[in-house]
Amino acid sequence: MNFSRTADTAGQTVTPGDIDAAARRLAGIAVRTHILESPLLNQALGCRLLIKAEPLQRTGSFKFRGAYNAISQLDAAQRQAGVVAYSSGNHAQGVAAAARMLGVPATIVMPSDAPAIKIANTRAWGAEVVLYDRERDNREAIGGAIAASRGADIVKPFDDPRVIAGQGTIGLEIAQQCAEMGITPDTVLIPSGGGGLTSGTALALSRESPRSAIWAVEPEDFDDTRRSLAEGRRLGLRPGGKSICDALLSPMPGEITFPLLKSLGVRGLAVSDAAVRGAMTTAFIHFKLVVEPGGAVALAAALDETNRQTMGQTIVCVCSGGNVDPALFADILAGSA
Amino acid sequence: MNFSRTADTAGQTVTPGDIDAAARRLAGIAVRTHILESPLLNQALGCRLLIKAEPLQRTGSFKFRGAYNAISQLDAAQRQAGVVAYSSGNHAQGVAAAARMLGVPATIVMPSDAPAIKIANTRAWGAEVVLYDRERDNREAIGGAIAASRGADIVKPFDDPRVIAGQGTIGLEIAQQCAEMGITPDTVLIPSGGGGLTSGTALALSRESPRSAIWAVEPEDFDDTRRSLAEGRRLGLRPGGKSICDALLSPMPGEITFPLLKSLGVRGLAVSDAAVRGAMTTAFIHFKLVVEPGGAVALAAALDETNRQTMGQTIVCVCSGGNVDPALFADILAGSA
Repeated sequence: MNFSRTADTAGQTVTPGDIDAAARRLAGIAVRTHILESPLLNQALGCRLLIKAEPLQRTGSFKFRGAYNAISQLDAAQRQAGVVAYSSGNHAQGVAAAARMLGVPATIVMPSDAPAIKIANTRAWGAEVVLYDRERDNREAIGGAIAASRGADIVKPFDDPRVIAGQGTIGLEIAQQCAEMGITPDTVLIPSGGGGLTSGTALALSRESPRSAIWAVEPEDFDDTRRSLAEGRRLGLRPGGKSICDALLSPMPGEITFPLLKSLGVRGLAVSDAAVRGAMTTAFIHFKLVVEPGGAVALAAALDETNRQTMGQTIVCVCSGGNVDPALFADILAGSA
Repeated sequence: MNFSRTADTAGQTVTPGDIDAAARRLAGIAVRTHILESPLLNQALGCRLLIKAEPLQRTGSFKFRGAYNAISQLDAAQRQAGVVAYSSGNHAQGVAAAARMLGVPATIVMPSDAPAIKIANTRAWGAEVVLYDRERDNREAIGGAIAASRGADIVKPFDDPRVIAGQGTIGLEIAQQCAEMGITPDTVLIPSGGGGLTSGTALALSRESPRSAIWAVEPEDFDDTRRSLAEGRRLGLRPGGKSICDALLSPMPGEITFPLLKSLGVRGLAVSDAAVRGAMTTAFIHFKLVVEPGGAVALAAALDETNRQTMGQTIVCVCSGGNVDPALFADILAGSA
């Protein structure tokens, strides 16, 4: 059963070679997104700030990378049985798009309060969407039951070595693109939910750019990774948190991702929703890029002068996605959200 | 005198070889901007729509290309005397940024009602900004007087072969990037003010992709190019027009650009401001790209089903810039502008 096979992965890990293999699978399929830079913003900040622009990725976020890397490895019988994913929206779209490209049926379990644009796009990619109540239901249980009934493979949002390796191709690209520009990042800042993007990217950079300091950045009420890294063990969220960063609300670092983050020396930082709004506006003005709240936390951290004092001259921020409802974006630009 | 030398260019033209030379000057300097595509939008439109994303260019618009191509050809004495430009904003920023990169002083004559972000950015690039009244003053006269007094070179916004050749590198890139994707555009749609971008791009495509139909797209109250192409001679604007497309308000096709457009078989189309607003929202949703009103006219034309009936299966739209004030963008996203 694919379901039990996927569950086994909790004891596994990921190597830089897995990321190289993912890069080969994604070549010519995923967008090698621009690294963007604004000399005027650099001038204002007194450092060199580079943006890895994943809103320009297929489906509007980095999640396509991991999803395609996972699904493209399924054999013919597994492809026929289909895939199941649970996601607040970006992983949903990534899995739905990758599944369609590969001719695999997809069922996505999504919270009923996910941004409308993410639910609509997931359906438009041809996936079956099953909604659940974020307060009442357990998405893993729902997804697991569906997968078991169909023999379908679960593509987990972060705790899956295939997904982590796919997201890690961002780290390879950052290193390659910076090398083409003749620079070495002092610091790389990465938005962190369950840690798939952060652990994969940190793993790639540990080989390609070992002198770069890596930070996992979270919303301040959802700083489980920061606290876990500080204590050296996985900690859950404190209750009652609120954030506009719908993509980063996962409750605890992953069983696979956390040991990677810890062994790679990644540190944690958190930012306020107000800082996120400011970062989204900065990305609009200086990079002409639509960044969603959760995708802007790393940029928000870099725009904080206190943070920057320890980050060196060359800072890369991953802007991880751009799937934000127009009304919310308009409110944020107008200063009223 | 540089001023008289530049004035002589009115009798000149541009060749595809000039665009090749511009591409060599811009290699590693200008961004080779992404061609973006949304399978979900394609599905809704029933064709393949590709976006050349020039908001991601340095200074947020294509204008950097022509400005850098022009200024980088000045000799040492000319560089010391500086450059003068007149512009509603994007050419201003392009000239200011290129001049600074090349160590050349720049003076920019701008209308006092240009978007605040364009005036602020031009100053931030270190240029001296001279404001004029769009209703009362003649910007060419003001710019000419400043240039004559300093022996400075005028970098015209469109009627300058160096500028046209620089903008034409977009045509080379479209052809190259489409070839890499294994496709040939049936139609290429290009925002048109004075015609520098359109004539340069059409010239490059006439050699690289001769079967692609080329359309110059304008706001409907500023359709001097469409009417001129229909009549076969340069016509000015009808009075009293209004448009949110501040980048496309030039009064007449250029002396150099119009004969090029005509000889290359370019045709004209116009779109309403309402269609432009819709195109800006589409670019936000599907491409995560900030496009300014004037930069969105080509996309607006392609989103019109009646237009699309004659455009074939593969349509490339140049989105030419993204320098729009946050308040206007917020109003447009919220549906109130």
